[in-house]
Amino acid sequence: MIGRTHHCGEIRNEHVGDRVQLKGWVQKRRDLGQVIFLDVRDRSGIVQVVFSPEVNKSALEAADRVRNEYVIEVEGEVVLRDPKTVNDKLATGEIEIHASNITILNVSKPVPFQIEADTDASEDVRLKYRYLDLRRPDMQETFKLRHRTTKIIRDFLDEQTFMEIETPMLTKSTPEGARDYLVPSRVHHGEFYALPQSPQLFKQLLMVSGFERYYQIVRCFRDEDLRADRQPEFTQVDIETSFMDKEDLLAMTENMMAKILKETKGVELSLPLPRLTYDEAMNRFGSDKPDLRFGMELIELSEVVKDTEFKVFQSALASGGIVKGLNLKGGADKLSRKEIDALTDFVKQYGAKGLAWLKVEEDGLKGPIAKFFEGDQEAALLEALGAEAGDLLFFGADKSQVVFDSLGALRLKFGKQFDLIDTSQFNFLWVVDFPLVEYDEDAKRYVALHHPFTSPKKEDIELLATDPGSVRADAYDLVLNGYELGGGSQRIYQRNIQEQMFKALGFSEEEAREQFGFLLDAFEFGTPPHGGIALGLDRMIMLLAGRTNLRDTIAFPKTASASCLLTNAPGGVSVEQLIDLNLSIIGKKADKVNV
Amino acid sequence: MIGRTHHCGEIRNEHVGDRVQLKGWVQKRRDLGQVIFLDVRDRSGIVQVVFSPEVNKSALEAADRVRNEYVIEVEGEVVLRDPKTVNDKLATGEIEIHASNITILNVSKPVPFQIEADTDASEDVRLKYRYLDLRRPDMQETFKLRHRTTKIIRDFLDEQTFMEIETPMLTKSTPEGARDYLVPSRVHHGEFYALPQSPQLFKQLLMVSGFERYYQIVRCFRDEDLRADRQPEFTQVDIETSFMDKEDLLAMTENMMAKILKETKGVELSLPLPRLTYDEAMNRFGSDKPDLRFGMELIELSEVVKDTEFKVFQSALASGGIVKGLNLKGGADKLSRKEIDALTDFVKQYGAKGLAWLKVEEDGLKGPIAKFFEGDQEAALLEALGAEAGDLLFFGADKSQVVFDSLGALRLKFGKQFDLIDTSQFNFLWVVDFPLVEYDEDAKRYVALHHPFTSPKKEDIELLATDPGSVRADAYDLVLNGYELGGGSQRIYQRNIQEQMFKALGFSEEEAREQFGFLLDAFEFGTPPHGGIALGLDRMIMLLAGRTNLRDTIAFPKTASASCLLTNAPGGVSVEQLIDLNLSIIGKKADKVNV
Repeated sequence: MIGRTHHCGEIRNEHVGDRVQLKGWVQKRRDLGQVIFLDVRDRSGIVQVVFSPEVNKSALEAADRVRNEYVIEVEGEVVLRDPKTVNDKLATGEIEIHASNITILNVSKPVPFQIEADTDASEDVRLKYRYLDLRRPDMQETFKLRHRTTKIIRDFLDEQTFMEIETPMLTKSTPEGARDYLVPSRVHHGEFYALPQSPQLFKQLLMVSGFERYYQIVRCFRDEDLRADRQPEFTQVDIETSFMDKEDLLAMTENMMAKILKETKGVELSLPLPRLTYDEAMNRFGSDKPDLRFGMELIELSEVVKDTEFKVFQSALASGGIVKGLNLKGGADKLSRKEIDALTDFVKQYGAKGLAWLKVEEDGLKGPIAKFFEGDQEAALLEALGAEAGDLLFFGADKSQVVFDSLGALRLKFGKQFDLIDTSQFNFLWVVDFPLVEYDEDAKRYVALHHPFTSPKKEDIELLATDPGSVRADAYDLVLNGYELGGGSQRIYQRNIQEQMFKALGFSEEEAREQFGFLLDAFEFGTPPHGGIALGLDRMIMLLAGRTNLRDTIAFPKTASASCLLTNAPGGVSVEQLIDLNLSIIGKKADKVNV
Repeated sequence: MIGRTHHCGEIRNEHVGDRVQLKGWVQKRRDLGQVIFLDVRDRSGIVQVVFSPEVNKSALEAADRVRNEYVIEVEGEVVLRDPKTVNDKLATGEIEIHASNITILNVSKPVPFQIEADTDASEDVRLKYRYLDLRRPDMQETFKLRHRTTKIIRDFLDEQTFMEIETPMLTKSTPEGARDYLVPSRVHHGEFYALPQSPQLFKQLLMVSGFERYYQIVRCFRDEDLRADRQPEFTQVDIETSFMDKEDLLAMTENMMAKILKETKGVELSLPLPRLTYDEAMNRFGSDKPDLRFGMELIELSEVVKDTEFKVFQSALASGGIVKGLNLKGGADKLSRKEIDALTDFVKQYGAKGLAWLKVEEDGLKGPIAKFFEGDQEAALLEALGAEAGDLLFFGADKSQVVFDSLGALRLKFGKQFDLIDTSQFNFLWVVDFPLVEYDEDAKRYVALHHPFTSPKKEDIELLATDPGSVRADAYDLVLNGYELGGGSQRIYQRNIQEQMFKALGFSEEEAREQFGFLLDAFEFGTPPHGGIALGLDRMIMLLAGRTNLRDTIAFPKTASASCLLTNAPGGVSVEQLIDLNLSIIGKKADKVNV
């Protein structure tokens, strides 16, 4: 039996002359008749192993039976390669192992795709053979990055005297928020647990318990229809603190992110991070998670265009809406008339009724609405938009939210389409001063933008009774490269403010009790001022790894239909299991329930 | 507003003369008329704060409004106490704070039980007000211990190049093993996910993926009827390695435990840990998790008693059973005849038909079966049992398992009852060489004692085809103070051995595929030799904390009926939620499903 003295990827010139023992997988086999080369891979990397009759004949014969992805152990001497055969692409490329001994530990069928950084296998095939996909070096690197990031976070929070405390997975379903995953109880007839959407209530209870600094890297669940960057189960870095004000919490979070960036990417983050208020982010970028890696801000034009005769602008302004513009610098030549027209369909997804536009040419404005801008109006418009010949201008005129959404999306689309984004950047900012509540047209009442325990800003508390819609929350989102990396808030801890909040949300005392009774009870026994934040770990890793697919950061992810292509979960269960749970399936015959 | 310069429990003589700012809860308030004393508590401990008219009159007036568990911030000067009022029980007992300023941050209703280390509150009340129970200093200490232990484990495994990798919570139900918690799918009609009983299959897949060293501190779920030391959700330290043999894995685990013991308890563990084979553990202690903190071993008597005329012994031996004895040293005076008779009921729980016993007196054996032992037989018996006058002897005669179970339980009962256990010890051992399979009388076939991927010991592989019941597994349990702290094994990684194993378990190829298809597929693509272990974290903390109730180590535990008394989970869900999931509840009217 052969032991293991080294890992494959770690052998260097300094080991020349050493006898080494390695274990790993056969990445590639080249048979040159009298000599066989095996590239042997373990999680540290790859090294070339040479079998020849001069060194050991029986080892050469054994190597002849080896195929790709066989598991082997080999023993041999580290030898400097002939300068002509040095491989610059391998960290071990200056040496090779002259093998005197090999044992085949296990065989492998031919793999459905090559174990290499780049693969052209479809994602479905990769997910079905996830155990092979995870062998690919870029996936190995991603999970090393995930491990290291997690460790850095844990070390940082431990140094800051945070305690890791686990909260339950089998919890109670609450009607507010996203859809819960439910877990039927066998013991309590017709009752269900819910998997947590976040440990929000428990972490606040831990503050009532006096733990002062809690953290957990914790699985959360949402039974929502999935988008590209959502998974039914996801991991969040969950933090809650007592007696720490917003400024301290933000500074601590920034320090944690700076440490992560430095240790994983070698990037020095400049602190403090910039901040935008929610209003500013929406007005300038049309988004509460603006991507600041490029400019092309939304320009306020309501004042500039207020006297034009273009009806669309006039009616928007008359009904309390706004007009904003976007200047695609040098865009006049970049988009055809047909492409510009297609953008109308694009903005309609965001509720816009249309998309007005203008080309700036040497001899003035061109386009369907050019006639409305002449003389002073034209000059004022060009000045406001910083426009010059060759630019292409777009306009949004509607309720402010529609203008933000449609022009914000258009800005991002252009940023990507015209390569305006410096993808080497890690661009962080805080968005602060979110609205506390928003009006729900369906429910005909205000609903909490975050959750009903988010504290209003001190200076806005009085407005809670008179004008809830204008109250700003003591809430903050951390944004990275246009993604919401996390969000947090100071919490309400005083009973009278909590009562005002429930009143503003239209909850009766009974309704509040029914939904949040145990938390309200807890709040009566000496609740400290507290606040916290939660960061999406999967997304953080995705952005650190420079990837765009959240599934590449999760070892065993689900598809968009919440299936696991590897295990075929979910699946049928036995009738006995259903009877144990007192459940029957609507619209499906019992005999179709597979065991 | 008052800041925070110190934590309450950290102030010492060296701070005398300093002005300090503290935040915390009022542990106790004593009003001596002109002077008010507040014991102020935060998570670091307690300090005495004094309010007097000499120092600050308005602070005194404010302190007058304070009650127990109010949240306050105070400012004052650290002053040496009068030697007569020094409190030895407090770490801060030599000083006190003369307060010049106080702010009441929040009020509290009177608490249902005192926030003190010892409480006489019932466990139900403690669980209902868990957020207050967790304030008690012994609970705070337990969760600090849990945090520290977890951190030590993570640091240790990180140093050993283990990678923390997360596995899914929404997985596929497998029919083997304990009962799964199921999660209905909304998207896939009539299908279910299962919450994992352990990440066993996924961690083996990660070895196929070449990660080589995986760990996770992970929540697991079992929908079983609960005993005192079981919870529906529990946390396990889950480890899997490739290319590491059993000896390396055991040594590494021992080193990890030694580090935990040293850093949390200051205890030096003597390594390597002792080992017992399963057979030896059963024969000597009647348990596969023997408590070695005391002796009183089970003594083999089959040979000694083979010629007695006592029918119970004879028929046990004749039908292939065994006879064993237990010597309760000096027990003759400790148990009344009535108490001895009651022990018969005790052993009947373990399948014994009765409990024979003998008292050793100066003039010979006394008791119902004394007449069967005379002369040489008496002498041989006394010698075998090391018995002398004053001892009380008990006998088990039955199938070996019944004898092990009943005398093993009796041994533990006596150990506790007569205070034979040195509770200051942390007594670790490995139990090794478990049987690979056991015969299931109901299923009329062999079932895996651990799981069907546990490797047989190399030297026993040939027996797999001919005599599966005698094959020993390459499996190992770590036992601490009579509790199974964890268990692991080397896994089967070769296809032909896996096929033999399934055959021994009576699985057809189709059945094996149906249950474990994706793992068997994975095993065809270059599976490395691998093995791993899982340790129960909740139980580890319980034993380190010197506690006996597993619930005291879990922040928000469930009761024996799997309920949460704090949140009232599980609970009813809305009809809409059920319809979304295509489920109806058997035997419960729709209108009784509460929203």
